[in-house]
Amino acid sequence: MTEPAEDSAGERGQDVALAPGVAEVEDRWRRAVADLDNLRKRYARELEREREAERARAASWWLPVLDNLELALAHRKSGEDPVIEGVRAIRDQAVEVMGLLGFPRHDEAGVPFDPARHEVVSVVEDPARPPGVVVEVVRPGYGQGERQLRPAAVVVNRRQD
Amino acid sequence: MTEPAEDSAGERGQDVALAPGVAEVEDRWRRAVADLDNLRKRYARELEREREAERARAASWWLPVLDNLELALAHRKSGEDPVIEGVRAIRDQAVEVMGLLGFPRHDEAGVPFDPARHEVVSVVEDPARPPGVVVEVVRPGYGQGERQLRPAAVVVNRRQD
Repeated sequence: MTEPAEDSAGERGQDVALAPGVAEVEDRWRRAVADLDNLRKRYARELEREREAERARAASWWLPVLDNLELALAHRKSGEDPVIEGVRAIRDQAVEVMGLLGFPRHDEAGVPFDPARHEVVSVVEDPARPPGVVVEVVRPGYGQGERQLRPAAVVVNRRQD
Repeated sequence: MTEPAEDSAGERGQDVALAPGVAEVEDRWRRAVADLDNLRKRYARELEREREAERARAASWWLPVLDNLELALAHRKSGEDPVIEGVRAIRDQAVEVMGLLGFPRHDEAGVPFDPARHEVVSVVEDPARPPGVVVEVVRPGYGQGERQLRPAAVVVNRRQD
């Protein structure tokens, strides 16, 4: 505003090099406001993504603890020992927490093999069972689809052709 | 730019009611840019806070699992039983994960009582020990200062006056 003559000249588009006109500044302003709006929307999405990522990180740190609880229980029958029963209850509780974190456990045998949630560790040939079916779950999986912590490690029945 | 005469008049402050002048629009633009910058900074801080909150949430969900592992081990001596040794190793692993999540365990007896990290569950009177000292930790605490998941539950020696 110190040189009004030049400003108004620029505004009329006769001397744009000296100072920006109202339309140009208004355009900059509108772009900044649009950027603000986009930032807000992007942040809301990012926040949810970051929360999920942090949850997944925490779950992956706890996974070996849960796996070791499973190992301690492997090949032990129910009612064998009060200590074992206690550990079993703790394992069940840990599985529940995994579910709360968004990674429900899956360890179903007899279901069709699904490459998205199963990892084949060995193949058997059993004509008595349907081909391509999960015969045994060696290590349970957690979560599914886009929210998968780990696929289940499984033994699969060979497809007969 | 459709009515340059009016625009330049507004700029000189003679007729501001008709259309905003360059200075006014420029001011709006500068404010929007400043808002954008502030918002970016605020979001960066908030994102870190949210990550921490999510970590704390996950840790608090796992805490009962860890507590139950401790309970299963209470009053059991080392080398008593291979199953117990296995559970002890899993407990140690769980404590380590708590540390990774930012909540290191603390269960030191003999330290001065600190209301910021200790919760008194009972008081004893033992002239043989220093007054106001933690005699026993009944339940370990996790984290400290602003990042505390839970204070340690302790037995404290009475202050003699």
